[in-house]
Amino acid sequence: MLQDQHYLRIPGPTPIPPSVQRAMAQPMIGHRGDETSELLLSIKPMLKKVFGTKQDVLIIAGSGTSGLEAAVVNAVKPLDEVLVIVSGAFGERFVKICKAYGIKVHTYDVEWGKAFDPEDVRDFLQYFPMVKAVFATYCETSTGVMNPVDQLAKTIKEVSDALIIVDGVSCVGGVETKMDEWDVDMMVTGSQKAFMLPAGLTFIAASNRAWAVIDSNPNRGFYLDLKKYKENLDKNTTPFTPALSLLFGLEDALKLMEAEGLTQVYARHALMKEMTRAAFRAHDIPLLADEENASDTVTAVQPEDFDAELLRKVLKQEFGLSVAGGQGHLKGQIFRVGHMGYCSPADVLQTISMMEIGLLKIGKKIELGKGIAAAQQIYLAKGEDN
Amino acid sequence: MLQDQHYLRIPGPTPIPPSVQRAMAQPMIGHRGDETSELLLSIKPMLKKVFGTKQDVLIIAGSGTSGLEAAVVNAVKPLDEVLVIVSGAFGERFVKICKAYGIKVHTYDVEWGKAFDPEDVRDFLQYFPMVKAVFATYCETSTGVMNPVDQLAKTIKEVSDALIIVDGVSCVGGVETKMDEWDVDMMVTGSQKAFMLPAGLTFIAASNRAWAVIDSNPNRGFYLDLKKYKENLDKNTTPFTPALSLLFGLEDALKLMEAEGLTQVYARHALMKEMTRAAFRAHDIPLLADEENASDTVTAVQPEDFDAELLRKVLKQEFGLSVAGGQGHLKGQIFRVGHMGYCSPADVLQTISMMEIGLLKIGKKIELGKGIAAAQQIYLAKGEDN
Repeated sequence: MLQDQHYLRIPGPTPIPPSVQRAMAQPMIGHRGDETSELLLSIKPMLKKVFGTKQDVLIIAGSGTSGLEAAVVNAVKPLDEVLVIVSGAFGERFVKICKAYGIKVHTYDVEWGKAFDPEDVRDFLQYFPMVKAVFATYCETSTGVMNPVDQLAKTIKEVSDALIIVDGVSCVGGVETKMDEWDVDMMVTGSQKAFMLPAGLTFIAASNRAWAVIDSNPNRGFYLDLKKYKENLDKNTTPFTPALSLLFGLEDALKLMEAEGLTQVYARHALMKEMTRAAFRAHDIPLLADEENASDTVTAVQPEDFDAELLRKVLKQEFGLSVAGGQGHLKGQIFRVGHMGYCSPADVLQTISMMEIGLLKIGKKIELGKGIAAAQQIYLAKGEDN
Repeated sequence: MLQDQHYLRIPGPTPIPPSVQRAMAQPMIGHRGDETSELLLSIKPMLKKVFGTKQDVLIIAGSGTSGLEAAVVNAVKPLDEVLVIVSGAFGERFVKICKAYGIKVHTYDVEWGKAFDPEDVRDFLQYFPMVKAVFATYCETSTGVMNPVDQLAKTIKEVSDALIIVDGVSCVGGVETKMDEWDVDMMVTGSQKAFMLPAGLTFIAASNRAWAVIDSNPNRGFYLDLKKYKENLDKNTTPFTPALSLLFGLEDALKLMEAEGLTQVYARHALMKEMTRAAFRAHDIPLLADEENASDTVTAVQPEDFDAELLRKVLKQEFGLSVAGGQGHLKGQIFRVGHMGYCSPADVLQTISMMEIGLLKIGKKIELGKGIAAAQQIYLAKGEDN
């Protein structure tokens, strides 16, 4: 097989654009000098647009989980009651983080593969008036479901003034995010998904309501204390040594997104979802998430008559194509195809063409080219240039 | 459109593997130090295998044309008679170089899109006993034809003892080359094709017969004087400053080829040709070269009912896909799809899937997915793992 070639179609980390690679290879600079301040000044306004917020988006050197933990330690006090909406592995992660801090956790469990219903959350909260924060996942990476976080605040506000804290790790940057308009109080994401960067940065923004809580919280930890990041960012600096290469890359990646246009970036992700889903539907292969809740960034496929793990193995061996397996109780039951960040409709077509060969190789009887044709038709019907 | 993404499917320059890019980014070294000698020592045996020769393969910093010129100035004297077999734009280039040196050129013209017949060359040479060298093109990049250079020496030797000088630029490294076994006297190629490197290096090897002529040639120019390169390479050095970054890359590219296995590299190129041709045949789109003479590295397509240039424009605009146009009198009449070097069967499938969309976009009525299915079938029938 052709060496040194890999097709990375997992739901993050995602491939890195060449110009971002070049940007990250720049010589190191002093982290307390003007160059670093100029870099932060250049990044700040672009990051706000992606989050749909007027608030500062704070940048922490750490993976996405450190951002989720930052949300917890800053906005919640030990012994506070919180509600975590759990619809997959990343909902569960919020539970674990809260429990590690002695926070009293109520969980609202949603069947994996389904989205939560904001009205159910409201009904749940009526019985728990002491809940100080509601944790939700925007795109649940483990199931390929996009949850209606846009509806959450307006639905629950009659019964609760809990903060709404959203894990946007596997979609912010690839799907429209209007933190301010949706009244989301904290939004967290990571660099290794729709931002087209390696893992290593987490981004977090807080509403005025959230800042009021943070300001009054006496125990915000040390490294993840968001007030430190906020006060420093106001002076175009950072509380601790920033991951400068990743910031070089972030500036470049944001410029690529602006050059494409954020509206076009979101339309491309929606198109890639539709193409991917159409291809599997054409072969009568079931998808885990319903049409209306399907994520624009990752598609979970739930085969009935072939072995997901065997397909993954064959695709890796045959083409160097990586797709993700299932997590938790869905391990072995599903596989997940990422289509986010540095990924184009043409890359989706290529993934499907490999997938079809892989399916035949593992003995599933399919008509070659049928999934491709379905995806091509979607492209032609909805393509940007039409 | 997703920024910073390009699908380069012209017949060279070709995409560069990431590890080759990293190798080329190594810090500069002294060109007269041990590191450079070690680099040359590492490259030498690998390059010989690719050429199928026991002779040293000389490395010149220059594009392929400098290698062709080196063959001319070293092996031919002014006023010598030569025969150039012209079956495309690169045959014509040999004519121009020879004429620039006052060499008496006979041309044997072959219809563009056809291969030469060694027996016709033999018949031609019977009338020109003074011909000192025959220039032939292995893969004619401008037409996608692979000429039977393997048969040339054994066919003409009854009537001529001319040196056989072969331009292998767009195929050596991607197709089997047995310089010694085929009795080829000089073989030339460039770095930007099957070698997966940027342009900037040309490789040239000469037989004992050719070296005898070179040794007796008093006017070999200066920079392209092959004796200088040979004498220096024997001492693991170079006559002039070598293009060190490209040599770093060359070492890595050759290692990638060895890791894949040269037999597998050649099988992959043959497979990619068959897949590409099957796809166009499935859509009844005519190909310029016949089945038996078609190049493993580049396919020329000759549309009857659509505009090749319009298709190329749409593919570039829509996907960032570059395929090449025609050269010389075939300009506007054909387009050429490269499938060589850092290119896999999955990349061929992707190219076809974009091509099908492009064809529909310019108004050609085709059945989507049909070309893909044909190429997938070829893959499954002939794929490496079968």
